[in-house]
Amino acid sequence: MSVTRRQFLARVGQAGGYSAAVVAMQGLGLFPTYAEASIGAPEVAAGHGKGVKVVVLGGGIAGLVAAYELRARGYEVTLLEARSRPGGRNWSVRRGDKIEFLDGTVQHCTWDEGHYQNFGPARLPSVHKLMLGYAKTFGVELQVEVNTTRSSFLQNDNANGGKPVVQRQAINDTRGHVSELLSKSILGGSLDQEFTGQDKQRMLDFLRLYGPLDDAGKYAGSDRAGYDVMPGAGEQTGSLTKPLDMHTLLDAEFWNGLLYEETFDWQATMFQPVGGMDRIPYAFAKSLGSIIKYESPVTEMRRTSKGVRIGYKHKGVEEHLEADYCICAMPLTQLKKIPNDLSAPTQKIIGESVYGDAYKIAWESRRFWEQDYNIYGGLEFVNVGCSPVWFPSDKFFSERGVFVSGYTEEHMTPLAKMTLEQKFAESRKTIERLHPGKGKELEKPLYVNWGKIPFNEGSWIDTYGAGQERNASAVSQGSARASARPIGSNQANYEELLQQDGPFFLSGDHMSHIVGWQEGAAESSHRVVGMLDNVVKHARLATATRNVNA
Amino acid sequence: MSVTRRQFLARVGQAGGYSAAVVAMQGLGLFPTYAEASIGAPEVAAGHGKGVKVVVLGGGIAGLVAAYELRARGYEVTLLEARSRPGGRNWSVRRGDKIEFLDGTVQHCTWDEGHYQNFGPARLPSVHKLMLGYAKTFGVELQVEVNTTRSSFLQNDNANGGKPVVQRQAINDTRGHVSELLSKSILGGSLDQEFTGQDKQRMLDFLRLYGPLDDAGKYAGSDRAGYDVMPGAGEQTGSLTKPLDMHTLLDAEFWNGLLYEETFDWQATMFQPVGGMDRIPYAFAKSLGSIIKYESPVTEMRRTSKGVRIGYKHKGVEEHLEADYCICAMPLTQLKKIPNDLSAPTQKIIGESVYGDAYKIAWESRRFWEQDYNIYGGLEFVNVGCSPVWFPSDKFFSERGVFVSGYTEEHMTPLAKMTLEQKFAESRKTIERLHPGKGKELEKPLYVNWGKIPFNEGSWIDTYGAGQERNASAVSQGSARASARPIGSNQANYEELLQQDGPFFLSGDHMSHIVGWQEGAAESSHRVVGMLDNVVKHARLATATRNVNA
Repeated sequence: MSVTRRQFLARVGQAGGYSAAVVAMQGLGLFPTYAEASIGAPEVAAGHGKGVKVVVLGGGIAGLVAAYELRARGYEVTLLEARSRPGGRNWSVRRGDKIEFLDGTVQHCTWDEGHYQNFGPARLPSVHKLMLGYAKTFGVELQVEVNTTRSSFLQNDNANGGKPVVQRQAINDTRGHVSELLSKSILGGSLDQEFTGQDKQRMLDFLRLYGPLDDAGKYAGSDRAGYDVMPGAGEQTGSLTKPLDMHTLLDAEFWNGLLYEETFDWQATMFQPVGGMDRIPYAFAKSLGSIIKYESPVTEMRRTSKGVRIGYKHKGVEEHLEADYCICAMPLTQLKKIPNDLSAPTQKIIGESVYGDAYKIAWESRRFWEQDYNIYGGLEFVNVGCSPVWFPSDKFFSERGVFVSGYTEEHMTPLAKMTLEQKFAESRKTIERLHPGKGKELEKPLYVNWGKIPFNEGSWIDTYGAGQERNASAVSQGSARASARPIGSNQANYEELLQQDGPFFLSGDHMSHIVGWQEGAAESSHRVVGMLDNVVKHARLATATRNVNA
Repeated sequence: MSVTRRQFLARVGQAGGYSAAVVAMQGLGLFPTYAEASIGAPEVAAGHGKGVKVVVLGGGIAGLVAAYELRARGYEVTLLEARSRPGGRNWSVRRGDKIEFLDGTVQHCTWDEGHYQNFGPARLPSVHKLMLGYAKTFGVELQVEVNTTRSSFLQNDNANGGKPVVQRQAINDTRGHVSELLSKSILGGSLDQEFTGQDKQRMLDFLRLYGPLDDAGKYAGSDRAGYDVMPGAGEQTGSLTKPLDMHTLLDAEFWNGLLYEETFDWQATMFQPVGGMDRIPYAFAKSLGSIIKYESPVTEMRRTSKGVRIGYKHKGVEEHLEADYCICAMPLTQLKKIPNDLSAPTQKIIGESVYGDAYKIAWESRRFWEQDYNIYGGLEFVNVGCSPVWFPSDKFFSERGVFVSGYTEEHMTPLAKMTLEQKFAESRKTIERLHPGKGKELEKPLYVNWGKIPFNEGSWIDTYGAGQERNASAVSQGSARASARPIGSNQANYEELLQQDGPFFLSGDHMSHIVGWQEGAAESSHRVVGMLDNVVKHARLATATRNVNA
């Protein structure tokens, strides 16, 4: 191989996103594939949980969903949340909000009224039915999140003289060259053994459309790749953009970002709540009312003869509550710091788990991307600097907006060693690479790194314990996301965490194969609520049997 | 060739849309390419047109834009419109509206309040800057029009046993097979002469991402193509959909609809006005006020010593008005019926021009596409029946909606020989092919064929005169649209119509290279207003010179 396995996987991650990397790794035998098993929340009677007390720890999506579903079944639920707001990583920052890091750094948001940035999750794929279902249930208004637009750019310092290329051209010229090469090869007879009957001719016909190719089998450009001069009125025929040559497209991994739209959970159609992703947790919170106790960070998690005893601090005062069961929906970064009575193997795995440190840098500026480039929403990628850039899908055609320049795990980038001001300069430079002259229009930057945020200290799980190379490719440049479970060689550890541990159940996106997505958190809580239902059912049966035997 | 040239062009049209067909035809030498020339509306002083009277004929987008721009320059403008509404083909039908055909057929719209169908234009590409600009100027609220979604279907009676295939699978399995074939060919050494230096290895690395391929160079499926079992919580890893084999994808022109999203003016991001496309003409009309005379069909267009004399009928009474110039923004189907003093060559071309007869059939029903298939917006294609199907981009997640099943030129389809009830049955059958069991949920169908609508009698121009095969491929199944000018061999005719004809100027999308789009109409009117500005300027200079000389 001319590239190492690691480079290859990094590139898969870049081009196809995390899921593509997982599929590739499964192909390489690096990710075990194992038999699927679905644990849905079984149908139970409305009052099934009556008389059973459950405490839920953590008011992110997993905790909110667990509390909501438990209440619907009649359980007596209390949810302890460390912060004064619901949502966890689902956090939309607006004017007047404060960003505080563990090290004491504070940033204040002074963006115009009505602007916001979802520093956590910001997309709802149309295949994430639980989250869309909750939004519908609560009447949270959704709008299209434009994840892909053909007008946005790719840029690579080492290709095309560093000049940015519009995605419609990169995507369509690439297909054109691939089709031309294959057509040439088929015409030369080298693939005759691959075809039977009329398939060879059909493939040639197909490639003419797919490229598209001319009658000579050449890719000579296409309106798909865009125009230098647009078609217009009268004599203005329009002038097609000259194709980029194959060497340029191949050079220096130019395909970074080329296929991100095809990754399963990045595919159109995607949605976002109007006004910010936090409209969803606030809707849960409104519904749950006094079930949620805010500003109540957990201090200990103990087993008792009857169930659990959870200590927490409320306004400086140590308090505690007792319950029959506990669903812990906190990140493992927090759980590992809390004295607890989880089993020794579970504690060890949690203690050795490692979380990612994804960051986003967001700016306010004139909507130069819309006004000067016809870019409405969508992502852009660079090979050096802060990537991707992500333009907003709200308030199209208005004067100013907030957008992201830089979203990935930080520890693997040069940003990790920079001061805050240096990070902002690097982020601004990315815009200058993609849109020369526009960098100076950027104002009021804000930076969130989930590794630095109290009560999170991580963006999503990277590994489930020691003995595994940190899953770097998952979150490399151009694919700052996780969409499947980074279990790596730690399948056994993951399975250990999935088990009921006495009165304790773990929930969260880290307990799913949809890591880094709200849907994973929601699915995980459906799962543990179902497990709890079963436990309660069997306990009732046992009690009934005992009574009969007595 | 195993396919005839005509079949090939039809397929190009199917797969790539009209623009792709034009590019292909240019490649075949069937469409002449000629030097571009831009005639923009030059900057003039605000009062440039003072004292100059212009009559505009037709209140579609071309006429409205012409009147709006002329008034802005100080011209005295009158616009004559045959109907009682503005917009022409830009027509949104709602509850209470009546559809009347030339033959007396009448349909009444009884859809639920708030539903509508844009029977004319229904999309605003983000590259159509004039139309987006007017929408912004008038404060017409726009929302994303989802033209592409990976969850929608393709269906072909002759392939895959007639079973529909989700687009994410057709698109991604196709790329996978193409990449595998090319990789195999390169590994076999048959393309060595195409590569220099490291490019061969780079191409192989690239194809592994592009396919994606496994280390053996095989396409073995991908999350891009979707899952049979979704990844979920706990043990639910998810199970990838088995790839369709290459033969199935090749069979029976299965690629119909595969690349429609890449056609230049169908590329994301696209928009639509909230509440109906007619929000735009109504905004123009509100701004123009009494400049528009409704219910005033033109009866004659005469030259006078000073300019023009236009006869029209208002509430049954013959009336007329005089002006210095006339911009005729009616379809040529109407102009050819009106006695006029256009030059003989122009009259001949107009008389021989042929228009298309695009239709749409729209239904109201439960949003089965969203609720049962996670399809939000987007298009679907069938090879037999009414195609494409087009789901709405408004009111996502609500209970019921209005969508299109069938949109193409009708004269080339079996529909042309059917009764209205038979057409509806055929349209319903299309839904049954794509979504078995759902056909019976469709209610309250409406059918509009622009060839049957008074004051239009055509959807868009197909040819500019005799001696040319009618441009059938442009509007074949699966690409019911026109996005470039169907001049065919009639370049000279088109150029003739572009010229000022004494006091007359022709405007409309048919006077542009963006036929069938509002942008073409708007661009065309910018062009003729610019021509008129020049004429007026030169007339003034001549007068001034005469006065000096006198």
